[in-house]
Amino acid sequence: MRTLEWINGAIEMIDQTRLPGDEIILRIDTTTELVAAIKRLSVRGAPAIGVAGAYGVALAAQLHDPRLDPSGFETAVASIRSARPTAVNLARMVDRVALVARTNPAGALAEAHAVRNDEVRASLSMGDRGADLVMSLMRSRAGDPAAGRSNLGVRAMTICNTGGLATVERGTALAVVHTLHERAQLVEVIAVETRPLLQGARLTTWELARMGAPHRLVVDGAGPFLLARGLADVVLIGADRVAANGDTANKIGSFSLALGAARAGVPFIVVAPESTVDLDTADGSVVEIEDRGADEVTMLAGRLIAPAGTAVINPAFDVTPVDLITALVTDRRVVRFDQGQTLSTVS
Amino acid sequence: MRTLEWINGAIEMIDQTRLPGDEIILRIDTTTELVAAIKRLSVRGAPAIGVAGAYGVALAAQLHDPRLDPSGFETAVASIRSARPTAVNLARMVDRVALVARTNPAGALAEAHAVRNDEVRASLSMGDRGADLVMSLMRSRAGDPAAGRSNLGVRAMTICNTGGLATVERGTALAVVHTLHERAQLVEVIAVETRPLLQGARLTTWELARMGAPHRLVVDGAGPFLLARGLADVVLIGADRVAANGDTANKIGSFSLALGAARAGVPFIVVAPESTVDLDTADGSVVEIEDRGADEVTMLAGRLIAPAGTAVINPAFDVTPVDLITALVTDRRVVRFDQGQTLSTVS
Repeated sequence: MRTLEWINGAIEMIDQTRLPGDEIILRIDTTTELVAAIKRLSVRGAPAIGVAGAYGVALAAQLHDPRLDPSGFETAVASIRSARPTAVNLARMVDRVALVARTNPAGALAEAHAVRNDEVRASLSMGDRGADLVMSLMRSRAGDPAAGRSNLGVRAMTICNTGGLATVERGTALAVVHTLHERAQLVEVIAVETRPLLQGARLTTWELARMGAPHRLVVDGAGPFLLARGLADVVLIGADRVAANGDTANKIGSFSLALGAARAGVPFIVVAPESTVDLDTADGSVVEIEDRGADEVTMLAGRLIAPAGTAVINPAFDVTPVDLITALVTDRRVVRFDQGQTLSTVS
Repeated sequence: MRTLEWINGAIEMIDQTRLPGDEIILRIDTTTELVAAIKRLSVRGAPAIGVAGAYGVALAAQLHDPRLDPSGFETAVASIRSARPTAVNLARMVDRVALVARTNPAGALAEAHAVRNDEVRASLSMGDRGADLVMSLMRSRAGDPAAGRSNLGVRAMTICNTGGLATVERGTALAVVHTLHERAQLVEVIAVETRPLLQGARLTTWELARMGAPHRLVVDGAGPFLLARGLADVVLIGADRVAANGDTANKIGSFSLALGAARAGVPFIVVAPESTVDLDTADGSVVEIEDRGADEVTMLAGRLIAPAGTAVINPAFDVTPVDLITALVTDRRVVRFDQGQTLSTVS
């Protein structure tokens, strides 16, 4: 599934705010439009935002030659870079392409394509590593390390959308689901709906249905209880930023699933590309948490669902402390926090 | 606020499914209509359902004299009794009034009024006991038991609606909030929205606004994280059933807040009338959890918010194990589970 592409001099993307009702393709040929699309979540998911930002810089270089109009170029780059504050990929990918563009404007697009291709490769790699890890955890929980992969089927719980829509290929946490499904090792996915914007209800169910993977939808508040009742074997989440100590910022509600998983003794696995790891962030306490305002919570489908004027706290992300995380799976490595490994001891 | 009353031979109630948009009063003069109103949650909250059931039996006795038409009466009583499976109050209050009605049909209404008046008294008592307990916990956390009630203000988190709408007067958990507010000891309430039916977003905010109490609304998934970030001093919840060992069935999402409160070291207090305590239920593992079907989760305000046909798990309640509960406040006593007290050691 291609959700974001460079087509004939502009960015084309599925408008994710309209799914699953309508499949609308947006064609974006200005950086102002791109920033607006990122802010309103027409494109979302840390890796996809990173790729969108990379193509955005290519677009900026096309509109404002960095050697002839450096201030126009830098203003456009800065606005893209700050469209979402929590995801580290966006800033990093914007910087990567801008660095090339400043000396070689014609090379910006090639660099953006390289960013995209790296994400596709990362997706496939995370799917393989994650599926291997999940099966290995299942086998050791089943008490027979030699049992092989014969009869074990995985029931996975996940939050938000971490599939092809959130990246440009099969995703992060949902890439692991996808790979398990391809290997015929997936029994069911429990998707939590992910309020306020319902990415789980709208997008993950849509992707799972296209994949042919059995799934059930639940409200966010039901996740920890269903774990307590033994309905899932593993929780798989993505990440917007992984701090140097392993603390992980991800969609609001992730921390609650981590608490539920720890209580139930169920592995809790973060799946994210290396580009999400931010060694400059020491731990979760210093991650900036974006507050996205009241309307997302009080309005739904254009209708008020709370009294007019109700005050809201709307953190887009939360931070799961590393002691609640079993392992981090990236495109390059598996870090078993539950076995005392750290980001600096595993290469 | 009167949300459910016996007026001139029939039950009148605010249709809670229409709040906060419309204040519609339903007049109910058949038991079939009452059962439908309970099932669709026009009346909800364990104490309010209990009072509705009590008046329902009075209505049944009026329509089918238990001495002349016992099978008509018992059929009606049985249908009311089983309208919702999880709340123990409903069965208990129905049984209480039916017992009177079978020998003295004319006394059924007086018994139903007595049920109602008991709930009103219980509300006031829970408010006082709960507010005293919260202030005492605040003082001991502040490290100075002699500090008195001078400068301490309470920031409380709550789920679902446990106010006057859920009872017939000021409620259970929200009665504690109400009393704290009357005593000028309330700083803020954080209400979690309570998917799928949004009782927190629609009803609790509406009651808090009428009370003049400062409040902010958050999605359910944000509750545990905001506790971790120190935004609340106490979590107050109601209960649909308290088992003999203290395990508590309440609105789905309560368990997740309990996990968050335990992790953050914040007191987690259950507020419920004695009628909610069910010594016949040994512990939470045997509580029947009602599954309310897919539509509540996939439809909102008449619109599909997930792909058509998506399978759903929709548990209306969860069970919070007693080891995560600081105390139970009833209209008669405070049981400090955190100090090793139990329902049988405290009278």
